[in-house]
Amino acid sequence: MTDAARSPEDLGRLAQSLLDELARVTDEPGRITRTYLSPAHARSIDLVGGWMRERGLTTELDPVATLRGRRAADEGAAPRTLLIGSHIDTVVDAGKLDGTLGVIGGILALEEIERRGLRLPFAVEILAFGDEEGVRFPSALSSSSAATGTYRREWLEARDRDGVKLAEALIAFGCDPARIETATIDPAGVLGYLEIHIEQGPRLEHWGLPLGVVTSIAGQTRMSMTLTGMAGHAGTVPMDLRRDALAGLAEIILGVERIGRQGTGELVATVGRVQVFPGAGNTVPGRVEASLDVRAAADTPRLVALERIAWEAGRIAERRGLSVALERNVDVPTCPMDEGLQEAFARAVVSLGLDLRRLPSGAGHDAMAMARSFPSAMLFIRSKAGISHNPLEWSDPLDLGLGIEALVRTILDLAEKERDR
Amino acid sequence: MTDAARSPEDLGRLAQSLLDELARVTDEPGRITRTYLSPAHARSIDLVGGWMRERGLTTELDPVATLRGRRAADEGAAPRTLLIGSHIDTVVDAGKLDGTLGVIGGILALEEIERRGLRLPFAVEILAFGDEEGVRFPSALSSSSAATGTYRREWLEARDRDGVKLAEALIAFGCDPARIETATIDPAGVLGYLEIHIEQGPRLEHWGLPLGVVTSIAGQTRMSMTLTGMAGHAGTVPMDLRRDALAGLAEIILGVERIGRQGTGELVATVGRVQVFPGAGNTVPGRVEASLDVRAAADTPRLVALERIAWEAGRIAERRGLSVALERNVDVPTCPMDEGLQEAFARAVVSLGLDLRRLPSGAGHDAMAMARSFPSAMLFIRSKAGISHNPLEWSDPLDLGLGIEALVRTILDLAEKERDR
Repeated sequence: MTDAARSPEDLGRLAQSLLDELARVTDEPGRITRTYLSPAHARSIDLVGGWMRERGLTTELDPVATLRGRRAADEGAAPRTLLIGSHIDTVVDAGKLDGTLGVIGGILALEEIERRGLRLPFAVEILAFGDEEGVRFPSALSSSSAATGTYRREWLEARDRDGVKLAEALIAFGCDPARIETATIDPAGVLGYLEIHIEQGPRLEHWGLPLGVVTSIAGQTRMSMTLTGMAGHAGTVPMDLRRDALAGLAEIILGVERIGRQGTGELVATVGRVQVFPGAGNTVPGRVEASLDVRAAADTPRLVALERIAWEAGRIAERRGLSVALERNVDVPTCPMDEGLQEAFARAVVSLGLDLRRLPSGAGHDAMAMARSFPSAMLFIRSKAGISHNPLEWSDPLDLGLGIEALVRTILDLAEKERDR
Repeated sequence: MTDAARSPEDLGRLAQSLLDELARVTDEPGRITRTYLSPAHARSIDLVGGWMRERGLTTELDPVATLRGRRAADEGAAPRTLLIGSHIDTVVDAGKLDGTLGVIGGILALEEIERRGLRLPFAVEILAFGDEEGVRFPSALSSSSAATGTYRREWLEARDRDGVKLAEALIAFGCDPARIETATIDPAGVLGYLEIHIEQGPRLEHWGLPLGVVTSIAGQTRMSMTLTGMAGHAGTVPMDLRRDALAGLAEIILGVERIGRQGTGELVATVGRVQVFPGAGNTVPGRVEASLDVRAAADTPRLVALERIAWEAGRIAERRGLSVALERNVDVPTCPMDEGLQEAFARAVVSLGLDLRRLPSGAGHDAMAMARSFPSAMLFIRSKAGISHNPLEWSDPLDLGLGIEALVRTILDLAEKERDR
């Protein structure tokens, strides 16, 4: 006995209601903030884990707090596993869709396959990663790195703004950092990794298309910059005797912007976080700390930009009598998506009667880390005005439904291939 | 029976030991931070109040938490009062001398007069103000404003970074904001206000002199700047579509620096505090808040600089598609010191065998507010390398002792004049 297939409209409405419910789980009342291993992260695991179990999935939490929900294979000897996932952590003051859509979309795609009475020759596992955004610790993509056996143990020593070590936060969360190796998924048994995600950029909207197949994920480097000068009284230290760390940073920020604008390969360069010490209105800043994020669709433009920024920062600091320290926290090369899985996504998009467009991803995603071990691919869903990492982040629920229907069809396409294997 | 007069060396050593003890009273272990109405402010009132009472002064706390220690007059009918003071609040990560020296110096000068068995024809009141630095609330000089009846009631509605209103903080401190009027000191009964303070600048050191008489206090304007653009994902919003509030602020900071350098009349212009929202490394900043502090030895250069900064900020914001809001929190005109009290300080300096030099003050001081009601004057003590608002703030203890001895002689000089009155 099977239920009728849901329309994309219905799938979209259902997805939206779950997204709305998850958005209410936050560390900061009034806005959406769910950082890695926070109380809201714990509550989101309870909520999403409940949705998985209601739909017959078997859940577990891995040693880095990735929630895994497994549907067994219906047929086949020694079946392999198809991984589907994204993340449930968010930036500070986030929107409702970034990451969460990939997890909820995966759960609803499996529910839909169940409703339609379809059988799969592989197991499917939904992965809800907890550390994609890298907001709390300088350790982006650590959850998906653990799944691929590329977790960097020095991350465990990193501290958040309150001085809490990542290792301590994991233990407080009920996880066991000593067992991180057991989070690794054996590639031999994995068919591939699929992730659906909002585009977070303006291109699909510009083309008038709800869906697009991702060709590659932009390489990304994240750094910390520290400039040190000399604090002093804002009323008595003459302008020409100052060693103002913030004025030096201001020059560097404008340099970063200019280098970003001049770059090729869809280069973007951003200073998003600044802390000024001592940080009082009547004191010349003696020290500043700031973040730097540089990305491009290919490696060369990114590496060239990083060299130019480091050279300019050094020159500015020298001229101003400041010292400068640059520390590279994340350095991920450009990551091409798997050709075979791209084609499976492409066939599903075409089967929906939609024009097929392919595009690179400017944002980093768990699929970057997953691609180290597994054939990986992503499907993008149109974002309104390209806005993301912002409460105004929005996609038409119909687009969400079309994305989930495309995921259902991609899974069925892969099932056919698996039977022919 | 009288004790022998202490030498400037001994007075300096004694002052240094009290300064060291007060420096241990802090809200942040490992560095000196005592902001208005904080737990450390309360403990510093207990400590300094104890020193006052041990020396026979009668203490009280006024409705804005100014500690007042009074020595009655020894002679004369209907005696007037000489006010001596400075502040015991500090910037974040402060030195030991700024403000505290004026309070401790006043207490030790009275002790010395007592030891020498000298009699005064006026009462003396030592005022230890609590809100000079304006670090916690945007309300600088509020304590001394209350003493002159020029307290601005809107300060009571101002909030600190944790959202606590100044009025609430006063009540929690045991003060009664409804009684602020009773903090006003009647000018009719006041002879004048004296403040000794470290220079916080490099001029006395340059001249090789331990003491200098202040001619005027630089006018000062403090503003808050808010720039609003559009937050977005650092990987997907192309450089030419960004409305990055921090990049706009960077341009303004460099404009402030340039205008400061080009100005006349010892103009200084400082951005000392910046907050970025949402403040994550992978998000284009949507909003920034920053402080602006502009001072000069005369009003015109300061007002011209403010107009130029406002015009440039508006032009930068317009070009970048940002909105800008500038709010003036403090606006104090240049404040000349009282001629008669300057001469009393000058005679004391000369009587010590020192060359007499006069200089303007680049920093704001409680004497600015006190001058609204009372003849007021300041004596500066040499600062090493002009460093202040910094843990490296330092003056030779001998210079401190010379400053206190000069204060003793100034009080005695005024006593003679008062008897002739």
